Amino acid sequence: MLSAHALAAFRSLLGTDRVFDDMAARMLYASDETPRQVVPDAVLFPTSHDEVAALVRIACEHRIALTPRGAGSGNVGGALPAPDSVVISFECMRRVLEFDPANRLIVVEPGVVTEEIDRTARGAGLFYPPDPGSAAYCRIGGNLAMNAAGPRAVKYGVTRDYVLGLRAVTGDGREIRTGCRTTKGVTGYDLTRLLVGSGGTLALITAATLKLLPAPEAVATLRVCFVSNRAALDAVGRVMRQAVVPSALEFMDRHAIDAIRPTGAASDLPAGTQALLMVEADGAAQDLPRQIAALEQALDGAGLLEIRSGFERQDIARLWMARKSLSHAVKRIAPLKINEDVVVPVSRLADFVDFLDHTAQTHQLPIVSFGHAGNGNLHINLMVHPADVDEMTRAHQALDAIMSRVLALGGTLSGEHGIGTEKRRFVSQEIDPPTLDLMRAIKRQFDPHGLLNPGKLFPD
Amino acid sequence: MLSAHALAAFRSLLGTDRVFDDMAARMLYASDETPRQVVPDAVLFPTSHDEVAALVRIACEHRIALTPRGAGSGNVGGALPAPDSVVISFECMRRVLEFDPANRLIVVEPGVVTEEIDRTARGAGLFYPPDPGSAAYCRIGGNLAMNAAGPRAVKYGVTRDYVLGLRAVTGDGREIRTGCRTTKGVTGYDLTRLLVGSGGTLALITAATLKLLPAPEAVATLRVCFVSNRAALDAVGRVMRQAVVPSALEFMDRHAIDAIRPTGAASDLPAGTQALLMVEADGAAQDLPRQIAALEQALDGAGLLEIRSGFERQDIARLWMARKSLSHAVKRIAPLKINEDVVVPVSRLADFVDFLDHTAQTHQLPIVSFGHAGNGNLHINLMVHPADVDEMTRAHQALDAIMSRVLALGGTLSGEHGIGTEKRRFVSQEIDPPTLDLMRAIKRQFDPHGLLNPGKLFPD
Repeated sequence: MLSAHALAAFRSLLGTDRVFDDMAARMLYASDETPRQVVPDAVLFPTSHDEVAALVRIACEHRIALTPRGAGSGNVGGALPAPDSVVISFECMRRVLEFDPANRLIVVEPGVVTEEIDRTARGAGLFYPPDPGSAAYCRIGGNLAMNAAGPRAVKYGVTRDYVLGLRAVTGDGREIRTGCRTTKGVTGYDLTRLLVGSGGTLALITAATLKLLPAPEAVATLRVCFVSNRAALDAVGRVMRQAVVPSALEFMDRHAIDAIRPTGAASDLPAGTQALLMVEADGAAQDLPRQIAALEQALDGAGLLEIRSGFERQDIARLWMARKSLSHAVKRIAPLKINEDVVVPVSRLADFVDFLDHTAQTHQLPIVSFGHAGNGNLHINLMVHPADVDEMTRAHQALDAIMSRVLALGGTLSGEHGIGTEKRRFVSQEIDPPTLDLMRAIKRQFDPHGLLNPGKLFPD
Repeated sequence: MLSAHALAAFRSLLGTDRVFDDMAARMLYASDETPRQVVPDAVLFPTSHDEVAALVRIACEHRIALTPRGAGSGNVGGALPAPDSVVISFECMRRVLEFDPANRLIVVEPGVVTEEIDRTARGAGLFYPPDPGSAAYCRIGGNLAMNAAGPRAVKYGVTRDYVLGLRAVTGDGREIRTGCRTTKGVTGYDLTRLLVGSGGTLALITAATLKLLPAPEAVATLRVCFVSNRAALDAVGRVMRQAVVPSALEFMDRHAIDAIRPTGAASDLPAGTQALLMVEADGAAQDLPRQIAALEQALDGAGLLEIRSGFERQDIARLWMARKSLSHAVKRIAPLKINEDVVVPVSRLADFVDFLDHTAQTHQLPIVSFGHAGNGNLHINLMVHPADVDEMTRAHQALDAIMSRVLALGGTLSGEHGIGTEKRRFVSQEIDPPTLDLMRAIKRQFDPHGLLNPGKLFPD
């Protein structure tokens, strides 16, 4: 429990209106998108780098654990409060500190909504490529913590690839600056990318310098229907073996299609559709027909039912309807979705999805799969009833089997959601003991008292 | 001096034919591209990961410093032996361990010649984008150590962006595996990019899994002549503010053009040419005319003298002649070139090159500048006579002034050459004390006895 002394110190720093210790506020910050709940001792809202540094030093003096938090939209418990911890919400640090179109960069505080970065960039003919599904409300700090990605990663890469430099505060209150402001730079160790994806366990990021690219002039979309998962995923392999890199290459398995049938969003799919790809290309309007033709040629093969293309905003939106209605639709299957975002090599996707079907049967569980097939990144949703103890046991057994298979296929536990609390138990299966020991040793250099987001990322 | 006991242990591990301690061999490995020379105690040639791990353990037991080395083609003393050290040459570890076109990846040992990676990839319609000037003979291990780049970085990024995972041996002989085999992955800390650019000071890389891209079908080149540096660099700014990202955007200042005049390579430049840009576009053959037209439009402006374009291999080679003849030509100016590869924001390039002209005048030194203007990465060559003490003093003063200006403009000390021995004295000007302390602390976790490439990267 937070001491009155520590609380007073936080209040003296931030004022009473940015330090909350009433139960209503604490409950609001007790969970993220996972079903768990841990009530923090207080919630703090710093507004500047200096305040973050000062509050970390107070926390350090009183040995109070800190749980950093953006929008709380994470899927793995990364923002789930540690017991007896204080939440640092970055929601009030949402300034664009600098926008420099001539050098294609933007400097933002961690609480800036991701979509706002892209919107600002587009005002000057630029764009910010990473586009996680939560871009409309998630905060860039959370994206940096988890190395977020989204559909465009197949062409443009992940958050890590767009971070030039960071300002941050370590677990013992040291203020550091990493990286640079230019697209090349190799002075000192790459602490920038060490912090990106570290889930707030090494330092609290207070500002990020992000790289921007010229915005593509136009976008075109293909909705491609197949008779089977394997036919669709074979087509993914063909797309990835030719020269036109799509700006999205999304897959929906037959369970995902079944899930949206009640919503009507599948009504214009041809009969026999058992798998779907959404393929997007972007670039110069003049060049899109060439790209689309090349993609259509690659997509053509055994089991193809239909390709529909859209070049105009309205048509594109209509084509995406099946995919966009999915997240809501799956919630009808069961109240809880255990959402994994594993990655396997693209060439192993078809085998892996077969294995998922087999696992769903043997464990008597609905498993709905979709995701970023061009990166081999699948979002696997085990649909369960939390009150059904037997079903939950089967779900956990199924998860164990799935993770083992992912690793056996040369994949990785998480593509973009991170490890958080939810995947900790699998980490030792992927990372060998000496490498994991080194990571723990690095953690101690940044956070000697273990106050930053404890209970995350590392196995027990 | 290496003890007989240690030497015997190395010989027992590698055999007598891969352990050299004769003076001729040691002299061959006493220098890189810098003018300095430090004779190592011995030169070792491991052929496998296991041998590297075993020899590091021997070195550790005897507390022998190790200097890792690829081709020795570095510019900053990164492969310059530390006093009393043993060189580990990776020249015998040059196997392509795996080539997996379907998943667009290749696994290589550190001694593979960089160009060979690209050649292998192109056999399957793929390519390896990083293309340092030394690609024909440098080893990928050195590229990884320095985060090498080259002209294509303006469109495709640097070595760091193409490393999926690593196998490596720490300074105390622990064997680690970092990263993954897929293009997304956020399990544990990003040790992959921590090792890339660390100059062999954290661990010895024994295998690297590299990402490949579909090879562009065709290339076109523009050679663009301007009346002044400022006119050329203003054009760089215009190119970087429009949508077509060139695959190279190289600059040569008027001193560089003067340097090639005696070779005849400048004979077809229009009168009054005082600065040159080489602009390359790549992609689908069908799309290149559109890209070139957009680039020509962006390049057009005050001070433009001439644009010549080439779409065929022979024409392209002719256009590049001025640029390609430069490295040899500058050697006629003075016997020693002090070669820096600083980076400044693209928008500050013109001011910076003005400053270089001013510095050359005030310090009475020829300074030849060229480089990767699209990244703001300039190769600055101070041409000096090492025997001329006064000139060398002026050169060092000029360097100090140049580095201060680079940092004042928001730039960084090195874009792709690294720090090595040569830039150590400037590092504290760029990296603040707490951040540098953290880097040193990380170093200790990987290399507790300080045996890996000592005397590099960190200031004294």
